[in-house]
Amino acid sequence: MENIDNEIEKKSIDPRLDNAGWANVLVQALPYFRHWVGKVVVVKYGGNAMLNEDLKHDVMEDIVLLNTIGIHVVLVHGGGPEINHMLDRVGKESKFINGLRYTDAETMEIVQMVLTGKLNKDIVGILLQQGGKAVGLSGVDSGLLRAKKISKDGTDLGFVGEVTEVHPEIIQSLLAQNFIPVVSTVALGEDGDDARYNINADTAAAKIAIALKAEKFIQLTNVPGVLKDVNDPSSLIQRIHIQDVDSLIKDGIIAGGMIPKIECCMLARNGGVPRTHIIDGRVPHSLLIEMFSDRGIGTMIY
Amino acid sequence: MENIDNEIEKKSIDPRLDNAGWANVLVQALPYFRHWVGKVVVVKYGGNAMLNEDLKHDVMEDIVLLNTIGIHVVLVHGGGPEINHMLDRVGKESKFINGLRYTDAETMEIVQMVLTGKLNKDIVGILLQQGGKAVGLSGVDSGLLRAKKISKDGTDLGFVGEVTEVHPEIIQSLLAQNFIPVVSTVALGEDGDDARYNINADTAAAKIAIALKAEKFIQLTNVPGVLKDVNDPSSLIQRIHIQDVDSLIKDGIIAGGMIPKIECCMLARNGGVPRTHIIDGRVPHSLLIEMFSDRGIGTMIY
Amino acid sequence: MENIDNEIEKKSIDPRLDNAGWANVLVQALPYFRHWVGKVVVVKYGGNAMLNEDLKHDVMEDIVLLNTIGIHVVLVHGGGPEINHMLDRVGKESKFINGLRYTDAETMEIVQMVLTGKLNKDIVGILLQQGGKAVGLSGVDSGLLRAKKISKDGTDLGFVGEVTEVHPEIIQSLLAQNFIPVVSTVALGEDGDDARYNINADTAAAKIAIALKAEKFIQLTNVPGVLKDVNDPSSLIQRIHIQDVDSLIKDGIIAGGMIPKIECCMLARNGGVPRTHIIDGRVPHSLLIEMFSDRGIGTMIY
Amino acid sequence: MENIDNEIEKKSIDPRLDNAGWANVLVQALPYFRHWVGKVVVVKYGGNAMLNEDLKHDVMEDIVLLNTIGIHVVLVHGGGPEINHMLDRVGKESKFINGLRYTDAETMEIVQMVLTGKLNKDIVGILLQQGGKAVGLSGVDSGLLRAKKISKDGTDLGFVGEVTEVHPEIIQSLLAQNFIPVVSTVALGEDGDDARYNINADTAAAKIAIALKAEKFIQLTNVPGVLKDVNDPSSLIQRIHIQDVDSLIKDGIIAGGMIPKIECCMLARNGGVPRTHIIDGRVPHSLLIEMFSDRGIGTMIY
Amino acid sequence: MENIDNEIEKKSIDPRLDNAGWANVLVQALPYFRHWVGKVVVVKYGGNAMLNEDLKHDVMEDIVLLNTIGIHVVLVHGGGPEINHMLDRVGKESKFINGLRYTDAETMEIVQMVLTGKLNKDIVGILLQQGGKAVGLSGVDSGLLRAKKISKDGTDLGFVGEVTEVHPEIIQSLLAQNFIPVVSTVALGEDGDDARYNINADTAAAKIAIALKAEKFIQLTNVPGVLKDVNDPSSLIQRIHIQDVDSLIKDGIIAGGMIPKIECCMLARNGGVPRTHIIDGRVPHSLLIEMFSDRGIGTMIY
Amino acid sequence: MENIDNEIEKKSIDPRLDNAGWANVLVQALPYFRHWVGKVVVVKYGGNAMLNEDLKHDVMEDIVLLNTIGIHVVLVHGGGPEINHMLDRVGKESKFINGLRYTDAETMEIVQMVLTGKLNKDIVGILLQQGGKAVGLSGVDSGLLRAKKISKDGTDLGFVGEVTEVHPEIIQSLLAQNFIPVVSTVALGEDGDDARYNINADTAAAKIAIALKAEKFIQLTNVPGVLKDVNDPSSLIQRIHIQDVDSLIKDGIIAGGMIPKIECCMLARNGGVPRTHIIDGRVPHSLLIEMFSDRGIGTMIY
Repeated sequence: MENIDNEIEKKSIDPRLDNAGWANVLVQALPYFRHWVGKVVVVKYGGNAMLNEDLKHDVMEDIVLLNTIGIHVVLVHGGGPEINHMLDRVGKESKFINGLRYTDAETMEIVQMVLTGKLNKDIVGILLQQGGKAVGLSGVDSGLLRAKKISKDGTDLGFVGEVTEVHPEIIQSLLAQNFIPVVSTVALGEDGDDARYNINADTAAAKIAIALKAEKFIQLTNVPGVLKDVNDPSSLIQRIHIQDVDSLIKDGIIAGGMIPKIECCMLARNGGVPRTHIIDGRVPHSLLIEMFSDRGIGTMIY
Repeated sequence: MENIDNEIEKKSIDPRLDNAGWANVLVQALPYFRHWVGKVVVVKYGGNAMLNEDLKHDVMEDIVLLNTIGIHVVLVHGGGPEINHMLDRVGKESKFINGLRYTDAETMEIVQMVLTGKLNKDIVGILLQQGGKAVGLSGVDSGLLRAKKISKDGTDLGFVGEVTEVHPEIIQSLLAQNFIPVVSTVALGEDGDDARYNINADTAAAKIAIALKAEKFIQLTNVPGVLKDVNDPSSLIQRIHIQDVDSLIKDGIIAGGMIPKIECCMLARNGGVPRTHIIDGRVPHSLLIEMFSDRGIGTMIY
Repeated sequence: MENIDNEIEKKSIDPRLDNAGWANVLVQALPYFRHWVGKVVVVKYGGNAMLNEDLKHDVMEDIVLLNTIGIHVVLVHGGGPEINHMLDRVGKESKFINGLRYTDAETMEIVQMVLTGKLNKDIVGILLQQGGKAVGLSGVDSGLLRAKKISKDGTDLGFVGEVTEVHPEIIQSLLAQNFIPVVSTVALGEDGDDARYNINADTAAAKIAIALKAEKFIQLTNVPGVLKDVNDPSSLIQRIHIQDVDSLIKDGIIAGGMIPKIECCMLARNGGVPRTHIIDGRVPHSLLIEMFSDRGIGTMIY
Repeated sequence: MENIDNEIEKKSIDPRLDNAGWANVLVQALPYFRHWVGKVVVVKYGGNAMLNEDLKHDVMEDIVLLNTIGIHVVLVHGGGPEINHMLDRVGKESKFINGLRYTDAETMEIVQMVLTGKLNKDIVGILLQQGGKAVGLSGVDSGLLRAKKISKDGTDLGFVGEVTEVHPEIIQSLLAQNFIPVVSTVALGEDGDDARYNINADTAAAKIAIALKAEKFIQLTNVPGVLKDVNDPSSLIQRIHIQDVDSLIKDGIIAGGMIPKIECCMLARNGGVPRTHIIDGRVPHSLLIEMFSDRGIGTMIY
Repeated sequence: MENIDNEIEKKSIDPRLDNAGWANVLVQALPYFRHWVGKVVVVKYGGNAMLNEDLKHDVMEDIVLLNTIGIHVVLVHGGGPEINHMLDRVGKESKFINGLRYTDAETMEIVQMVLTGKLNKDIVGILLQQGGKAVGLSGVDSGLLRAKKISKDGTDLGFVGEVTEVHPEIIQSLLAQNFIPVVSTVALGEDGDDARYNINADTAAAKIAIALKAEKFIQLTNVPGVLKDVNDPSSLIQRIHIQDVDSLIKDGIIAGGMIPKIECCMLARNGGVPRTHIIDGRVPHSLLIEMFSDRGIGTMIY
Repeated sequence: MENIDNEIEKKSIDPRLDNAGWANVLVQALPYFRHWVGKVVVVKYGGNAMLNEDLKHDVMEDIVLLNTIGIHVVLVHGGGPEINHMLDRVGKESKFINGLRYTDAETMEIVQMVLTGKLNKDIVGILLQQGGKAVGLSGVDSGLLRAKKISKDGTDLGFVGEVTEVHPEIIQSLLAQNFIPVVSTVALGEDGDDARYNINADTAAAKIAIALKAEKFIQLTNVPGVLKDVNDPSSLIQRIHIQDVDSLIKDGIIAGGMIPKIECCMLARNGGVPRTHIIDGRVPHSLLIEMFSDRGIGTMIY
């Protein structure tokens, strides 16, 4: 028995689990712990795992656990419905050009405020509650992310950009002192361009993983991974070699919304990150399951 | 002549100044440079200096200059009209109770978004433009500021708090690596209280200065300092010993809006910060003038 | 799913445990992990846990787990039946004087060989198998333990000694580089005395814990802890304040073989180790249960 | 206003300069500060700037300013009239062979004494007065400069040597701790040769700049730089690419005493120092003007 | 005169030696001291030097001297007659197969106990007496030596192995903190093989020297070195280039028991150790004589 | 045998000394080596040991030996006849006032040049020849020694001063990187006083020893130490406790020129240096004999 009075907030163990069964879980995880200690893991967090408060709490618990045992974990998050909600509140209507949303200056300001001023701080706050020394960053801080304006088929999309430079010194500095960096994906323009750009969070996360020479890049999504049969969850493909991706696309197995996720994995993989993953954020503690067990919780592109 | 091609953005020198006059300014500043290198200086930034774009640009230039020559400068900023503007945009009416503004949860959310998601990142961006490695922080990050709810004469003011703990490790860590920490004054509740609190930025800055064992605490305001005759700018009192403050209040020389500013200096001074200042942020580069010359630009409480 | 090919020796999870149940164990342990990371824990290992191969394996797994997540664990072990076995093999009969075993030079040599040449290296080997960078030490190495000869009631007991000095530099040096020090309790004579001494392993471990300013000292024994009713395992007393020990002895609740174990805890406790424990080494993974859960697995003297 | 009582020796600002004009000088210099912080700059100091006490004082102020803001400045000085003066005082007549001065052992002793025992310590003393932690070195100290005897057209010149090895460890060690190394150019013979050699100070400075991988090498001279028309100071050529030097010599624009100075720049440039300069030491604070402004104060060979 | 009371155990100087003669010895050794400070030297210790107590004492004094002045010395020792003696005591008869000794599990256990539990700790103890901070290691500790089973001409020799991997981190870590590592040559099986192997100590020492990138590898033996005429000690060959070894074997000058010793030198030499030596351990302080003088005390293979 | 080709300049061993006798000297010195490694020893060097070239060479060899084995040795030297010689050469007559020599500005300049420009660099050069990384310093460098003018009985002595401040940072910085600091005793005036002062070298050395918290302060003189009978060298008093000095002066045993030397030891001793010595610099290698043997070579005041 350990009782450190008020120092440790006790959590009871499932009473149906006997001591041996309980200990077995830790012991089974040991080889995984050993493998990952001291390595950099970038987690892209978004979608449903971010909306559901219980799931969000679980993800943060997982992140703090990784940090506590000495894994250098970086959390990159996107936005989602909160942005639309805020746009509605200020009565800002989205303008669409040929079906593409246009980001004007006013919209960009709202995007930045919600991402870095609300969502980022909410995540930092939950990590702190769990005992993690989290520090929020945006792509603006210390010039972490620089972007240039993009257009689609000649259509001006306003302040929509793509990341052209990652300056990871601030993240490395924080990791070296055991802080947990939490990054919201707003980018600064390139040198001389003072604008802020709305960027794709998945791609930004992949580029951060590359710049940090991460060992692992994980996308927490709201799908179970790549399924052979999209209607059969038991048809999960656990591992896909990067050379086999093209034929899986051709065969229609990787399709629709899965394609950009896989492309994002390929971007990281080709940039030198040896293991990239799409895992199911709707499963509680899917991050721990992926990192510390051999249970199938998603698809690895390697 | 130095010409480092495109590496250095050249700024022309006032042509009326000859070489000797130009060099004399640097040389005159040398003893001040020598004195302040390696020391911690906390600057509270708000009011008009923050609204006027030219002044804001000047302040940021000053901050980067301090950082560049090796002074550990920390910038703490408040909010101001931008918060009201945003509250207006979302149609949030301020509730007043006995003349005091009530901060409900929705208002607090807007306050946080504007402070940490807009103003903080704007400041960081300008510092970056000037070449400073600025990093934005809120009181939430790494648990920098913890606060508890306050009430005024028994009136519930909602999420209005006062700072009870400062955990300056993240600032110290950033200073040690030559980053410029920029702090927005939103605080987290005390352990177990997940709420965010609206806190007084001046007081928070003073408490940060104490926690960092700063050598100097400067409030950039929109007044010239303490005046013997409030209508005569030439009646500036340049130095006030902390023991003389009470009689100056009794005599009505320190009065009105100046009282809380002076109290804030006294808080810092009594907490161990040897020099505290109220200077005129409306004067361009008042920060440099205060730090590096013997020209009167405000009042020092020591 | 994580599959790091041959890098990680996979251990299957109990199939009856679902993902949520599995993850819950890790998550429940997180606050304990956080508390103990970076702290020094001295474990005295002996008795049955050392004889049973399965239990020994479990203990070593626990030690490597503690080390992996960043706890500075030191393992101190005693001897036991292996020494008698070896004495038998070389045909050395034990001499008893007034019921006390006499340690002559030849016996001492066998004791040293078995402890430091066999048991110590066996333990180091098992820790290595589990992935821990274990390094075996004796009290001789770098002068870790110095002892002086003792006699009992004027009876010469040969090379039986008591520890008079602990020089923990070598342990501290190894801990600082994440090695796991494994200490066998043979001591060198004091300065100028070249003899080796047979010392009490429990006491030596307590003194090492004091010299290292350990946060925790754990004796792995073959009893469940202090029982109110020695025949009723459910009568375990989980926590005893050091001031209450005397009355518990007077009342006969602490009695027999338990007395020296408790005295050993008191020695460590009075020397500045805040938490000392007697736990049941016969329960698999009792070390993990004590460190990372609130399940009662023994008695804490604090 | 800043008043640090007696801690800072106040220097008054030119009263004709208003605050804005004053601050503008510092602000204009900021990009240059930023560029040079942390880089190595070697300054060769001699000629008139060394004779005139006011100019000497200005140069030392400049050096301390560079050091204070974090530039790694090394000052290399030569001798000049003081040596002849001392030779006169001891009644030593200079011997000339075919128009070349012969350095016998006795002369070499005087050279060394004046350079390292008088001029070097005078410079160190003035730097100290300005607040710089200056440390005097000769080429003998820690074997900094090794030389071999040279002869000119077969004529023995006694102890006249050329630098064959630079061992910059002592300078690097001092720079790393923010000392200002001041080097007098006396060299030790090569291994096994115990003699001291009289060496050309300009060339020695260039070789020190190469050994330190300096970013900049500046010769403080008593000419304005390379002039197109030697009688027209306004015809200064501010930048010369190293490939254009030959044709400028052929055209007679680089001629006379300017040739060895330019050759010295070329030596440094070819040895890897990217920017080399000849500037006018007769202009007060020419060093600051060169380093921190875009005003023409000499010629850069790059 | 120096008298540090009880702090220094005084050793008298040979009264026949005058001060000048005495000092001359130290002074003559100075260039050798200078050369070896900070370098790694691996000494293989065995044979007669290990049996004779006086010689053993001398060797340990030499080792401590090397360590004290800052040479990174590693001592590797073998076993010898103590092992046979212990096998006799436990009544274990050696089994020979075709003239080769078979190492069964029981024998291996005795070998390990005597090497690491007795001889290693005896050496550590003597080094401690001389003031050296010695730490005993076996090939098991931190996985220092890994071996695989060998057979000779298809004959199973039991647990006889050859070293396949050296993991020198623990030695490097100890050297970096001025400890003296003392290594007994028992090896662990390769990954997954839990057995211990009896290995050739000379070869193991050579492989340790290679892994440490040692500057020197010295075998302390009981022969004077390579003799041209085996009956004439004055015919010592002091230096042999590695290319000349083959012809010396062909000529029968290197023969018999000298061949494996020379092969061991060649192993180290080919692995990158520039100087390898066979010296006469029967000569008192032969190690110092070899390291610090030009007197012939053995043969160098280089 | 060791032959490192051209790397080591071999010095032959006295052929009358056999190996055992030779090795015995090193071994006898080992406990002394062990004691002094890592400690600071200040040696004041002057008098005859400085004039005789052979003795000077011996002293420098000793200093390099101490440095090589890791003792932090600082050499402080005075001037002597070289100064008078130079004054003669420049035709400067010494002025005496009431029998005291007056140091005018011109004389002070010569003193400084000879001390720091000739003697200091000569010593540095010899140390370099022996392989020591020596660096010359004066009291001016980095403000090491500050002095104020003294007068004797109201008589103005010109630039004769006494040391009032020691700023040892530059020495500590050099020692930390294994350089040998060689200090010539010229002092700078106190803050604001730009003059140089002629100071007593023995006293300056003692004050440097105090500022460095040295373990030992040695004056190398041209007397054998304190003799009971000044005519009988065998009457040397090897140890004098500081409390017994007064009575030895009263008894006339400490008298004449010995008194200031003893006072200098007392100054150091009272300032915290535990062992202070007066030894006979005329005995070759007296420094080694004092440091590393128990042979009487002078008097210790402790």
